Amino acid sequence: MTTMTSQRRLKLGMVGGGDGAFIGAVHRMAARLDDCYELVAGALSSQPERAAASAAAIGLDPARAYSDYREMARREAARADGIDAVAIVTPNYLHAPVASAFLEAGIHVICDKPLAISLAEGEALAALAHARNRVFALTHVYAGYPMVRHARAMVAAGDIGEVRLVQVEYAQDWLAEAANQGRDYQENNWHNDPLRAGPAGCLGDIGTHAYHLAGFVAGMLPSQVLAELHAFTPGRRVDDHVQVMLRYANGARGMLWSSQMATGCENALKLRVFGSKASLAFDQENPNALWVTPQGGCAERLTRGRVRGAAAQAATRIPSGHPEGFIEAFAHLYREAAAQIHAREAGAAPEAGALPTVDDGVDGLRFIDAVIESHRGDARWVSLAG
Amino acid sequence: MTTMTSQRRLKLGMVGGGDGAFIGAVHRMAARLDDCYELVAGALSSQPERAAASAAAIGLDPARAYSDYREMARREAARADGIDAVAIVTPNYLHAPVASAFLEAGIHVICDKPLAISLAEGEALAALAHARNRVFALTHVYAGYPMVRHARAMVAAGDIGEVRLVQVEYAQDWLAEAANQGRDYQENNWHNDPLRAGPAGCLGDIGTHAYHLAGFVAGMLPSQVLAELHAFTPGRRVDDHVQVMLRYANGARGMLWSSQMATGCENALKLRVFGSKASLAFDQENPNALWVTPQGGCAERLTRGRVRGAAAQAATRIPSGHPEGFIEAFAHLYREAAAQIHAREAGAAPEAGALPTVDDGVDGLRFIDAVIESHRGDARWVSLAG
Amino acid sequence: MTTMTSQRRLKLGMVGGGDGAFIGAVHRMAARLDDCYELVAGALSSQPERAAASAAAIGLDPARAYSDYREMARREAARADGIDAVAIVTPNYLHAPVASAFLEAGIHVICDKPLAISLAEGEALAALAHARNRVFALTHVYAGYPMVRHARAMVAAGDIGEVRLVQVEYAQDWLAEAANQGRDYQENNWHNDPLRAGPAGCLGDIGTHAYHLAGFVAGMLPSQVLAELHAFTPGRRVDDHVQVMLRYANGARGMLWSSQMATGCENALKLRVFGSKASLAFDQENPNALWVTPQGGCAERLTRGRVRGAAAQAATRIPSGHPEGFIEAFAHLYREAAAQIHAREAGAAPEAGALPTVDDGVDGLRFIDAVIESHRGDARWVSLAG
Amino acid sequence: MTTMTSQRRLKLGMVGGGDGAFIGAVHRMAARLDDCYELVAGALSSQPERAAASAAAIGLDPARAYSDYREMARREAARADGIDAVAIVTPNYLHAPVASAFLEAGIHVICDKPLAISLAEGEALAALAHARNRVFALTHVYAGYPMVRHARAMVAAGDIGEVRLVQVEYAQDWLAEAANQGRDYQENNWHNDPLRAGPAGCLGDIGTHAYHLAGFVAGMLPSQVLAELHAFTPGRRVDDHVQVMLRYANGARGMLWSSQMATGCENALKLRVFGSKASLAFDQENPNALWVTPQGGCAERLTRGRVRGAAAQAATRIPSGHPEGFIEAFAHLYREAAAQIHAREAGAAPEAGALPTVDDGVDGLRFIDAVIESHRGDARWVSLAG
Repeated sequence: MTTMTSQRRLKLGMVGGGDGAFIGAVHRMAARLDDCYELVAGALSSQPERAAASAAAIGLDPARAYSDYREMARREAARADGIDAVAIVTPNYLHAPVASAFLEAGIHVICDKPLAISLAEGEALAALAHARNRVFALTHVYAGYPMVRHARAMVAAGDIGEVRLVQVEYAQDWLAEAANQGRDYQENNWHNDPLRAGPAGCLGDIGTHAYHLAGFVAGMLPSQVLAELHAFTPGRRVDDHVQVMLRYANGARGMLWSSQMATGCENALKLRVFGSKASLAFDQENPNALWVTPQGGCAERLTRGRVRGAAAQAATRIPSGHPEGFIEAFAHLYREAAAQIHAREAGAAPEAGALPTVDDGVDGLRFIDAVIESHRGDARWVSLAG
Repeated sequence: MTTMTSQRRLKLGMVGGGDGAFIGAVHRMAARLDDCYELVAGALSSQPERAAASAAAIGLDPARAYSDYREMARREAARADGIDAVAIVTPNYLHAPVASAFLEAGIHVICDKPLAISLAEGEALAALAHARNRVFALTHVYAGYPMVRHARAMVAAGDIGEVRLVQVEYAQDWLAEAANQGRDYQENNWHNDPLRAGPAGCLGDIGTHAYHLAGFVAGMLPSQVLAELHAFTPGRRVDDHVQVMLRYANGARGMLWSSQMATGCENALKLRVFGSKASLAFDQENPNALWVTPQGGCAERLTRGRVRGAAAQAATRIPSGHPEGFIEAFAHLYREAAAQIHAREAGAAPEAGALPTVDDGVDGLRFIDAVIESHRGDARWVSLAG
Repeated sequence: MTTMTSQRRLKLGMVGGGDGAFIGAVHRMAARLDDCYELVAGALSSQPERAAASAAAIGLDPARAYSDYREMARREAARADGIDAVAIVTPNYLHAPVASAFLEAGIHVICDKPLAISLAEGEALAALAHARNRVFALTHVYAGYPMVRHARAMVAAGDIGEVRLVQVEYAQDWLAEAANQGRDYQENNWHNDPLRAGPAGCLGDIGTHAYHLAGFVAGMLPSQVLAELHAFTPGRRVDDHVQVMLRYANGARGMLWSSQMATGCENALKLRVFGSKASLAFDQENPNALWVTPQGGCAERLTRGRVRGAAAQAATRIPSGHPEGFIEAFAHLYREAAAQIHAREAGAAPEAGALPTVDDGVDGLRFIDAVIESHRGDARWVSLAG
Repeated sequence: MTTMTSQRRLKLGMVGGGDGAFIGAVHRMAARLDDCYELVAGALSSQPERAAASAAAIGLDPARAYSDYREMARREAARADGIDAVAIVTPNYLHAPVASAFLEAGIHVICDKPLAISLAEGEALAALAHARNRVFALTHVYAGYPMVRHARAMVAAGDIGEVRLVQVEYAQDWLAEAANQGRDYQENNWHNDPLRAGPAGCLGDIGTHAYHLAGFVAGMLPSQVLAELHAFTPGRRVDDHVQVMLRYANGARGMLWSSQMATGCENALKLRVFGSKASLAFDQENPNALWVTPQGGCAERLTRGRVRGAAAQAATRIPSGHPEGFIEAFAHLYREAAAQIHAREAGAAPEAGALPTVDDGVDGLRFIDAVIESHRGDARWVSLAG
């Protein structure tokens, strides 16, 4: 669980993530959640107007709202109160050049995946990061789940024996939506443009998540792959479906399947690792559980709040049985309270919404009173006075 | 999904929630998540030293770190930049006096449940809140879940017909832990002290959550209750187990069960509402789903990302298939990146941790290259150069 | 698993279960499954024509097809090759008189539940069965599930500690179907006639199953009940909804809920027993699993094929991982083969149905060949010659 | 549901299935369940003594208990009351010669899978079966499940659109048990002997089940395969692990995985078929459900008792909500009653077992009485007189 710490908040900048960008907003929420960062600068868009408007919308100092990331790197590096780190949430092809510019300026990098759009570009970037001795975090988000951490720790501790088989899959169906199958999408969306997204479509977008997760938990990468890429979508310039067989140096086998044309799948990232003693199963859509089954035995459903392992504990904020959405649910009430406060301040009449209020509290107390009265009468019916 | 907004951040104070307090930390994370609040003042403890240390740990201005909530209300109300709202996360018996002090000072209130420790106290507080026309949010957190909102909207829209039966339960087992069954816990923990927790134990602590959730979704409160309270724990001064039968004005029936002695239960809050056309089922431990089954038909598993209803959408931050823990997982990577940056800044050698880095990115690109090469060879084995 | 035995098949008679009767057909399948009985006589209906036709349909000797159960008891008792046992599958009000007639004739009884339509009648019947020293099996079918047996054995062995709480429910929705809500059904169906079904509706029909199951597993019956019956159905003369609170002599508490108006429920019989060490959960719709969760721990999903307990093993016919429907699926193929054989014998042309045939076998062998050829080519694409 | 029929019972013989053989006992139970067959002859073993003892154990006429299947075919064909059909449950290498002998004798065949141990042998057998116009049922048992039938019917009706992707897997872990990893097992068990089991190990044993199921539901077989076989087990002469990529003539893709070394898996046969409109998922360990998810939509859990399709209905014996194990549970009570009857007949004292009896019936009636009394007292506590 979170404990209080007096470490200073780091100053954070962001490149990409202007209005309407999903992943930028997620990065900002993540940066705020544990209060370790303060967002103070951004090149939220390369279009000056959109950059300025987006910066204003999130309360950035206009003097630190840039549209050119190179200028941002240069000027932030020069300021006494310049950013400590930059979060990069641009289209894929910009990851490497933007990261390089900030590394050159001595600034730590938190970068969305994939790292780059070619291996050569990625290797050069890695060399630069190491040379400059800067932190370079790549947001393979699934590595942040408590039960993924626990699974990794179990494999590392030998709890499942020697790894024999890895089965990983990541299936979505959004690309099969009619709107995304049309010519317009295929011609204009950057995800389908090899120059901006790289030569890998589904493979780069989600296949690499599956690949990272498998390696993260299994503690090893394959030594050989055999693969077939496919595009079901007419006019598609990159793959939308990937099937891979895996061989590992220790003799283990594996399969990886990833698709964005898998009808009915939302975000079905699933990993199974079979060892000589036990197997593990993790499903990202139910991330608070990890299934462990010993050879010849029955499955145990480990949960985030109940496992005692340090790895899972370190990634946990809330107690046993509370799924992590608990914080978001709390946040939603706070957001609604803020909206009502703003409305009141603006002179609007109190509105009856879904936000629980003092009156709900009174109803609850009325229930408590009636329950106690009924109980004292050896369980008899008691009316709830309205 | 979150859209950018330029509304000013509200200034927030907090009473309670000093170092070690679980729910205070959750409230602070929730307040930060959507960037609607800035925490600027607090009476985090009534013990001056602990209050000051706790305030320092979270970076509050020492001038606004109080130990007396009355003083805090008075002085904050007097400041030009005083708090707009206060979050109250104290033991139950302080909810009403603290809330009253801030309402009297014209400050909006966000208060943990239960509202008060007696009905009379609660009714007085409600009257005050209404008289002062201040927002009073009571954090019945389960009302913040997207699928709870959707369930409520479905009932309100008549989608399940007339409500015929409500089954709600909230079961935990933490009180049955040996440490909590001992004499020390029973004598000293404020939850077991009727003077500080109120006369209701499990009933007030979690039974009221179940009661609120049932009413929130069903759109109606019972007109009669019949109840039995029980304490399995020796020396327990309040209940640890509650069974209630419910009757509603429209003829519906219901049952409520709540226990903190339910062996093996983490935080098992479950609601089922049966209408004349369909039934709904929600399980807080799997909050991204809502099960709907029509009379005589098959169950459909509605998910947060797939339902189109406005109520669920408004409470949603991230896309289909991503459980809300997604943000926490992201935040965990940010937190680890911050830790590594602090370490680097302090001259520590780069540490190999679980945080995905630029090298993981290179591995991913190597995988992409090998997959494409294999595919171009009509699916043949390709080695991954190390 | 079933082992071969040379014990003679018992001769079985049946009262009730004429054409169209669901439970009679189930009893006959059950009697055949393990080859312990041979059905040789029956009073399948009290209407002579229907009795004769039903007996002919299942191949009974016409001389042993009765319409009067008294006559059947008398004549079967007099035959050298008379029945050893009778299966009683009539409406409830006939259970006791029919059973009495056969007990008086010295014949063992297998009787559907409930035993009788009044306590006095049931007590008299029990006294008679004991006096005559005949086996009297009451088909509370849920007592026959392997995992129910295992649960019972675990409780008896002290594996869950002292039982603290019993939660049992049995919910269906068939009565809420429009056809069953009409006046015709309410006036004419024997289930709604207190004279034929007894004074208990849902309570007697399925509530007693829930009650038996709870006692069977928990190893104790309650000492006190507090109950509310309800009829949601207009014109209903017996209950269709039951809520009961339970108190046990050892201080345990419990709740029982049963309803035939629970929208969306098929046959939702669920039992949870909470002990001081662990809890158990069984769901009849997923009968191959038993969930066990220790205090403060994680749930384990015990399965029929994996638990080593003698009680479950004795009730098991097939191996680990094969749900018991496996036999039915096999039987379905046998049934289809029989239909095709009859058709062939009758000179009908071979029909292409769903029954797998020799040609499917060839397809399978073709697949094996192609797989081996591909593998020998270091995993290369191989065509399946049609 | 089963309806009564007066069609004559077919006379059935069996080859293989002597004492201790699992699959033979399953075939016999399946043949009995629907009362379509009468087992009258058998060559249950090729060892004369074991054949005779096994035949006696199941009550066969000694004159029709053979040890040579050729003699059995010849003599049964010559009898006026000879068998209509033979069930073949021998080791794989005997399937084809035994089946041929009976086909030559004009007898219908019900044969366990795989059809034969080589493609050439299987093709010859198919030619013979067609030439002789005999029914040849191959017991791919999974084709007998109601929800598999329903899935197949949905695909055939176009309900899921064009099939785009097939994912099928069949994983077990029994071979990884220590006892099965030893040299003795590898050298002596016929499953590991290519001469008796054929060249395919796991591939032939369960891989072909997966292959058949996929084709049965998808309505098409692949046109190309790419495969890797593997043996994790030291000394293993056939594969114990299979990975296959599939290509279909219509452009669909697929993957098949089968393993008997998949730690923790009991009998995990799972099929997913993704079409352009919807996807289907079936899991043999939960055979009463079929999951259907439309493109972009939410999953619906179709159940055996609730789908109205003719295909599922035809394969269904019992009502909505009762898993098929219901019959086995009933049968278990019948078996226990038989055991008690035999004991009584032998003069043994009545034993207190788990079989519900008349006394349980009295307890149930006592409960009903108490519930009604409590209800009449407006829900008050009523003691259960012991």
